[in-house]
Amino acid sequence: MTQLDEALRGAEADFPNALNRLLALLRISSVSSTEFGRDGIHACARWLADALGELGFAVEIVPTAWHPVVLATRRGTGPKTVLFYGHYDVQPAEPLEAWTSLPFEPALREEDGLTRIYARGASDSKGQFWSGIEAIRALLAVGEDLPCTITLLLEGEEEAGSPSLAAFLDAYRERVACDVALVSDSSMWSPTRPAITSRLKGLIHEKITITAPNGELHSGHFGNVAANPVRLLAKVLSAIHDDAGRVLIPGFYDGVTDIPDALRQQWNDLNLKAALAGVSVAGGPDEGGFGPVELMWGRPGVDFNGISGGNTGPSERSVLPALAYARITARLVDLQEPEDIRRKLRDFVRARVPRGCTVSFDGEGGSTAVTINSESDYVAAAARALDAEWPEKTLIMGTGGAVPLVGLLKEKLGVDCIVTGFILNDDAIHAPNERFDTERYRKAIRSWIRVITKVSEVAPRS
Amino acid sequence: MTQLDEALRGAEADFPNALNRLLALLRISSVSSTEFGRDGIHACARWLADALGELGFAVEIVPTAWHPVVLATRRGTGPKTVLFYGHYDVQPAEPLEAWTSLPFEPALREEDGLTRIYARGASDSKGQFWSGIEAIRALLAVGEDLPCTITLLLEGEEEAGSPSLAAFLDAYRERVACDVALVSDSSMWSPTRPAITSRLKGLIHEKITITAPNGELHSGHFGNVAANPVRLLAKVLSAIHDDAGRVLIPGFYDGVTDIPDALRQQWNDLNLKAALAGVSVAGGPDEGGFGPVELMWGRPGVDFNGISGGNTGPSERSVLPALAYARITARLVDLQEPEDIRRKLRDFVRARVPRGCTVSFDGEGGSTAVTINSESDYVAAAARALDAEWPEKTLIMGTGGAVPLVGLLKEKLGVDCIVTGFILNDDAIHAPNERFDTERYRKAIRSWIRVITKVSEVAPRS
Repeated sequence: MTQLDEALRGAEADFPNALNRLLALLRISSVSSTEFGRDGIHACARWLADALGELGFAVEIVPTAWHPVVLATRRGTGPKTVLFYGHYDVQPAEPLEAWTSLPFEPALREEDGLTRIYARGASDSKGQFWSGIEAIRALLAVGEDLPCTITLLLEGEEEAGSPSLAAFLDAYRERVACDVALVSDSSMWSPTRPAITSRLKGLIHEKITITAPNGELHSGHFGNVAANPVRLLAKVLSAIHDDAGRVLIPGFYDGVTDIPDALRQQWNDLNLKAALAGVSVAGGPDEGGFGPVELMWGRPGVDFNGISGGNTGPSERSVLPALAYARITARLVDLQEPEDIRRKLRDFVRARVPRGCTVSFDGEGGSTAVTINSESDYVAAAARALDAEWPEKTLIMGTGGAVPLVGLLKEKLGVDCIVTGFILNDDAIHAPNERFDTERYRKAIRSWIRVITKVSEVAPRS
Repeated sequence: MTQLDEALRGAEADFPNALNRLLALLRISSVSSTEFGRDGIHACARWLADALGELGFAVEIVPTAWHPVVLATRRGTGPKTVLFYGHYDVQPAEPLEAWTSLPFEPALREEDGLTRIYARGASDSKGQFWSGIEAIRALLAVGEDLPCTITLLLEGEEEAGSPSLAAFLDAYRERVACDVALVSDSSMWSPTRPAITSRLKGLIHEKITITAPNGELHSGHFGNVAANPVRLLAKVLSAIHDDAGRVLIPGFYDGVTDIPDALRQQWNDLNLKAALAGVSVAGGPDEGGFGPVELMWGRPGVDFNGISGGNTGPSERSVLPALAYARITARLVDLQEPEDIRRKLRDFVRARVPRGCTVSFDGEGGSTAVTINSESDYVAAAARALDAEWPEKTLIMGTGGAVPLVGLLKEKLGVDCIVTGFILNDDAIHAPNERFDTERYRKAIRSWIRVITKVSEVAPRS
């Protein structure tokens, strides 16, 4: 029996323990973007450092300007060095009232023939990277050592746009140097078909607040003459898209290149039902001229993530609001630059806010889109490894999501990533009742055992 | 010395006690429209009933389908019967964080040479109607009895549109029968010039909720294909007005008549600075063809009082919202009918919500606009009474606000109201840090002593 087969068998035997360890990790409320989550972030970094120390890794909790990075290395027998990336932070759990069980008290439920794990972070992304660590545990249990040197980089800011990651990579470039990076933060194509994501979008966040010159006023008395920030904000937001959903900000599409015909063909041949995974597109935008998969993976867009202003209480209150705000994201492709898009968005908004009212913006940084060479030996090795575990052949796909690390690693170290993972579209990531299931978790551990083994075996290019 | 002069003198001597009684009334959190306020509503009705019983009134706390009416009568020496109306309910105090002192713990502050009373309800409307009750106390202290029979009607639903008032008036029409009604819920023209309001707008409230076919989704994955309720709601709201602020709902202006030239002239001759009382119109709507006073008092409008959807938390969350809602009011004039306007608004919204998304509406009832005969002997008597108290002559004016009772009393009993009061535009009614001042309170008590006396003396028309 090979080391690979032994590790697979060992992982099966140890699975109940692996599940308990994941549940323990999910109990830590490591929300990166709120004050509430700060203690959870630090507790989670400490918990991970301890766990990796027990696996024989040299571990460091690296402070950054914001949330710490857990950096851990263990030398292997082979010549390759693999960087394994995950993020231990999670999205806020709000709105809490929409959860059927507590977001940081994982609940196991038998549904549809599966055992589902409900918890914030279950699939995005604790279930993803922890399955990789369980794979490492299984490999270590059966061999003298790992088949390659593994450096784990677990960050705590991904859900907040990774603001400290660039500076971290600059400072630790020698510690994170590697032949290839495994990034565990993406989706499967379907419950039976794994995927490697080769195109990721860029992302900027922006908060726009429009403030009237007066405080709150009685809307009966002054509604016909004084500025209403909700009315002004609605006008601004409604001007951003045409009725079909195409973005009207001048220059927004600069730097967007045509999707190659072959790729378009390949995407449009995909099973749309699988791509949408139960999500209805009724009433959704349709830029025109593109199929749904092209829109999701290949076209940029602007989304409104939240809006608030005036009376948001439970009852009627006849008030002219003092201010209103919207939270906006832009998803970028190809050569669109975060700062350029941010400037164009702000100019567009400023031009629509009347004199006497003020507009303020809150947002910085962001990431560019990344395309990974899907023809590399590493991608081929990883795809073969996944093929061996799952019923259907690995799909090379795109995503509308962003993983800032992928672009930074390419830019700063010239390293390509293999972006894979086991999230399904109906896992409700970023939403209430986020979930994962134990069968996928089991097969994710097995997948990582195979991927780490196969990637370690890639021969140097002559 | 006349009874009037003695009563004015007595009120001065008793003013410290009158102030303490108002502060006690302001401590009762009688918010009509929230669950929070229910205990306060009942406590306030009880407190008022006790106070009026001590003044020798026959008092009844009348249950309605929602909040009780306090109904109290005391016979006077003269033949006239005067109905005195006030509302003891208040607007919600949210947003609480915007208050510099607690809304239901009145704070006295020396500012601008005045002693200001900060509390929810200080000016709208506890300071208004309680000054009338203090006037009654002063009249009783110096005479054998009141100069007219007074029926007090204190309702607890005004800030929520008075849904039970029509049924109450039907059931109690004999108990509230009167020669004239004094309504204590309106504004002065300026700190030195009193006013009687002869035109009130009608009002409907409506809540519009747009729901997407999916729950919350990851905005990166599905933003380019799935419905975004915030985007749809912004489109709907922005379609309601043109850029100038004119309402575009078909038929909205049906039933709106031209403002008579003489009235337009009179309004446009008014000191605009006083009309706006420090409120800036920068960025405000301007329908075109009308002056600011005409817009405020004579033109209908649609206002957005609140909006909410998706991520309203303190930090970034890349979510496609599940739903978004807006709270809307329409202010009506002339012959505009609440149910007709509601139907037109709903049709307009429905036509703009794409198939597959749902829209729901929450709102009912409402009031029509009212114009009171400003040439009557009662209005003339009240105006002369106010002239005697204040430095400047009483102005007959309009308002953008609504007092449902005024229309109902005219419709059901054929009784005209004298709508007056002592609110100033910068009293922050319906807003945080609502206030009144002790000097106005003192002069309000004196004004009501004069008005009740003079209205009692009006000779029957031959």
